[in-house]
Amino acid sequence: MSLMSVKKADDFMAWYNEIVERADLADKRYPIKGMNIWRPYGWRLMSNIDKLTRAEMERTGHDEVQFPLLIPKHLFQKEADHIKGFNTEVFWVTHAGENELEEPWLLRPTSETAMYQIFSLWVRSHADLPLKTFQICNVFRYETKQTRAFMRVREIHFFEAHTCHDGFEDAERQIKEDLQIAGKIFSELGMEYLLSRRPEWDKFAGADYSIGLDVVMPSGRLLQLGSVHQYKTNFSEPYEIRFETPEGDHANVHQTTYGMSERVLGAMVGIHGDDKGIIVPPKVAPTQVAIVPVLFKGKEEGVLEACRGVHARLKEAGVRVELDETDDTAGAKYYKWEMKGVPLRLEIGPRDVEAGHVMAAPRHVEKQKEKIPLDDLEAGVERMLEKVHAGLLARHRETAEAMTHHVKSMKDTEGKKGLFISGWCGKDSCATDVETALNVKTIGIPEPREDPGDKKCITCGEPAKEVVRFAATY
Amino acid sequence: MSLMSVKKADDFMAWYNEIVERADLADKRYPIKGMNIWRPYGWRLMSNIDKLTRAEMERTGHDEVQFPLLIPKHLFQKEADHIKGFNTEVFWVTHAGENELEEPWLLRPTSETAMYQIFSLWVRSHADLPLKTFQICNVFRYETKQTRAFMRVREIHFFEAHTCHDGFEDAERQIKEDLQIAGKIFSELGMEYLLSRRPEWDKFAGADYSIGLDVVMPSGRLLQLGSVHQYKTNFSEPYEIRFETPEGDHANVHQTTYGMSERVLGAMVGIHGDDKGIIVPPKVAPTQVAIVPVLFKGKEEGVLEACRGVHARLKEAGVRVELDETDDTAGAKYYKWEMKGVPLRLEIGPRDVEAGHVMAAPRHVEKQKEKIPLDDLEAGVERMLEKVHAGLLARHRETAEAMTHHVKSMKDTEGKKGLFISGWCGKDSCATDVETALNVKTIGIPEPREDPGDKKCITCGEPAKEVVRFAATY
Repeated sequence: MSLMSVKKADDFMAWYNEIVERADLADKRYPIKGMNIWRPYGWRLMSNIDKLTRAEMERTGHDEVQFPLLIPKHLFQKEADHIKGFNTEVFWVTHAGENELEEPWLLRPTSETAMYQIFSLWVRSHADLPLKTFQICNVFRYETKQTRAFMRVREIHFFEAHTCHDGFEDAERQIKEDLQIAGKIFSELGMEYLLSRRPEWDKFAGADYSIGLDVVMPSGRLLQLGSVHQYKTNFSEPYEIRFETPEGDHANVHQTTYGMSERVLGAMVGIHGDDKGIIVPPKVAPTQVAIVPVLFKGKEEGVLEACRGVHARLKEAGVRVELDETDDTAGAKYYKWEMKGVPLRLEIGPRDVEAGHVMAAPRHVEKQKEKIPLDDLEAGVERMLEKVHAGLLARHRETAEAMTHHVKSMKDTEGKKGLFISGWCGKDSCATDVETALNVKTIGIPEPREDPGDKKCITCGEPAKEVVRFAATY
Repeated sequence: MSLMSVKKADDFMAWYNEIVERADLADKRYPIKGMNIWRPYGWRLMSNIDKLTRAEMERTGHDEVQFPLLIPKHLFQKEADHIKGFNTEVFWVTHAGENELEEPWLLRPTSETAMYQIFSLWVRSHADLPLKTFQICNVFRYETKQTRAFMRVREIHFFEAHTCHDGFEDAERQIKEDLQIAGKIFSELGMEYLLSRRPEWDKFAGADYSIGLDVVMPSGRLLQLGSVHQYKTNFSEPYEIRFETPEGDHANVHQTTYGMSERVLGAMVGIHGDDKGIIVPPKVAPTQVAIVPVLFKGKEEGVLEACRGVHARLKEAGVRVELDETDDTAGAKYYKWEMKGVPLRLEIGPRDVEAGHVMAAPRHVEKQKEKIPLDDLEAGVERMLEKVHAGLLARHRETAEAMTHHVKSMKDTEGKKGLFISGWCGKDSCATDVETALNVKTIGIPEPREDPGDKKCITCGEPAKEVVRFAATY
């Protein structure tokens, strides 16, 4: 039995659109397209993901900053490729009160151009490097395509790390660190991910190269959750971020960025959820454990007392736990906590109290309840939460693998959907031919690079220089 | 000795403008007036204040939400007084990419008009009430006056609670709760504050009445840090926020808001700081304790070992502690941590190691070091932190009292600056006469209301109906 009007397996996008509202994540009724309201539960979830990110930033010595939202036009236009890439995507503020501004300001679509002139004041000497900063903020992009909660919006909850280095090598080291951080975050969220070096024509506006962080969604399409960019000195030249070397020379810093958006939440919802609701990985669950008393007449007090004891012990152990003492039936409570994706439900009835255990129902599987003896409560709950986490990750890995197809020719792709991996001669036209024929995008070459061996180009059949990934994307 | 080029006592504003940069709170060099950069230390401080606020919101059952930044013009214009109050203060987005928008959108100066049409969808029945929400976000106001970091800016870090109630009484109860929350927060920050019901001509655009939360700054001027508003049904009528009563009737909700801005940080800096730097109340200090090893040749290892032991013990006890192992001299370390306002410095030298104690130097007083025996370390540090907190609060209370003058006539105010308290007949013109003559503002009548007794009006000499406060403001 399900509250949902559509099944995930039947129409993934319809299911997704419905579930983000049913699970109280977003309200899409705001009168500007692509600007949604974060409802309390959705915002708590996003805040927990942000906490994960912040912890990783702290561990790796990044400082959190906040730069202004508005960017003067002249500042935005200093890097030529950047402005070309974003010109059609930005919102312009032209008036204040009843006055027209002397110069229009734009709402940041990303913060390079807000930050880098100031970085030129912060960086003076090699002793100031590396400069490692990040901010969590909202950015704005004028999406003209169809919008979808978390996945394609116009006001985007965004994480962006910006770093400056004394040379190319240290910047490369930073990119390795970023990829390791991303891996850690995605793994905590139970998601298998792909790192792909984007083709030249799809790199970030102003970057030397870009690595995309993508996940395979249940529909077989890829969703980009973030990206890491090597800028070399492309921005530090126009923005004049220079430093004095130990030898007394002056040089431009090398820069990198690492960005991720609220799409991380969208992916988590879309990948793990089922027809009963979303499923939240235990690490970021606002409620990790929901305790549901199973009440029978005359035995309420003993059960409630046991529930309160379990609640207190788990709280003391640092578990985010809720005891559901509302007047709803046990069944209604199950539906509610299932919809919200709470990873573990504990049921306690009179017989459980007598037997000295609780029944633990992990959210990600059906009918696999386990008894946890009360004297093993804390460790047992931790084990079950770890089991949910491992189960989600394993399941997504399987889905992603089932959706991955190693192909030698376009003909091989027939009847298949998902991610295609093939050889590539390296010519743009051979990749764009695939894009047009299969209605996919060139995701890029695997990072780290894979040896193509004796593979042939999927299009022209010449010996492959690279392994390449193609897929339809959101 | 001080790094500062100006003393606080000589020129408060010059001192303030300098210290916000020297203490690494804000960078004011961004090329849009009144839009500053939060530097890492300033942002950590502000985030800790936000944590205090969030904890209070959680304690009182408010849900955190996030509404869009942009508001369509037609939505903004639904409440007539509100639009009149803000029309000259808002920034307008008119273009997206290369297109002109069909309808201009504005950057929220506050979020009533973004939220309330959605509240009308969230509130259906009396069972949905009270609806208690808040968000922490940035708001935008087109300030034309001189801007100052944290105190008067155009992009404002803002907290706003919005609530809906089943009637006037429950809304009044909410306002009492808000004032209690504000009191708790200001007290944690070591600040004495005033609650004043604003005169009719200075209430919030759309409010039935407004209570200002003000502090007396060291210059004698008042700074408004926040406010609490009773809206009655002024917004719920145009935005049609209606609910079904238990009797099956339909009624408009009563609403309240409670707002506070980054001015809280500005006040904290301005009130507590001295010529050596800022002073941060222990509850929100990013670093509560700085350990400075006092090294003598040949005895470094024993001292460093002792310092590391103290560091580990305090960290274990949940204290935010840093051990300064940089190569700077002890003196340079003292200056650095004093500038950052760390409330407690522990000095450990060879003699202290031998004697089995640490020297504790509280930041808010000169030359009042105390020995804390190692076997009383955790409790001793807690005691000293409490002492700094109490000392800051007592000192601000004294300053505020010394700046407060009970006056019977305008002549009484001669040669005095600060807050003037007098009787008032209640006529607008008598208050505005004072405003003009003394170049002050009518702060309002004390909340809760005070009985004027046999006081006379400061202007006309008629029997007073109210006690009233006047002061110059920022």
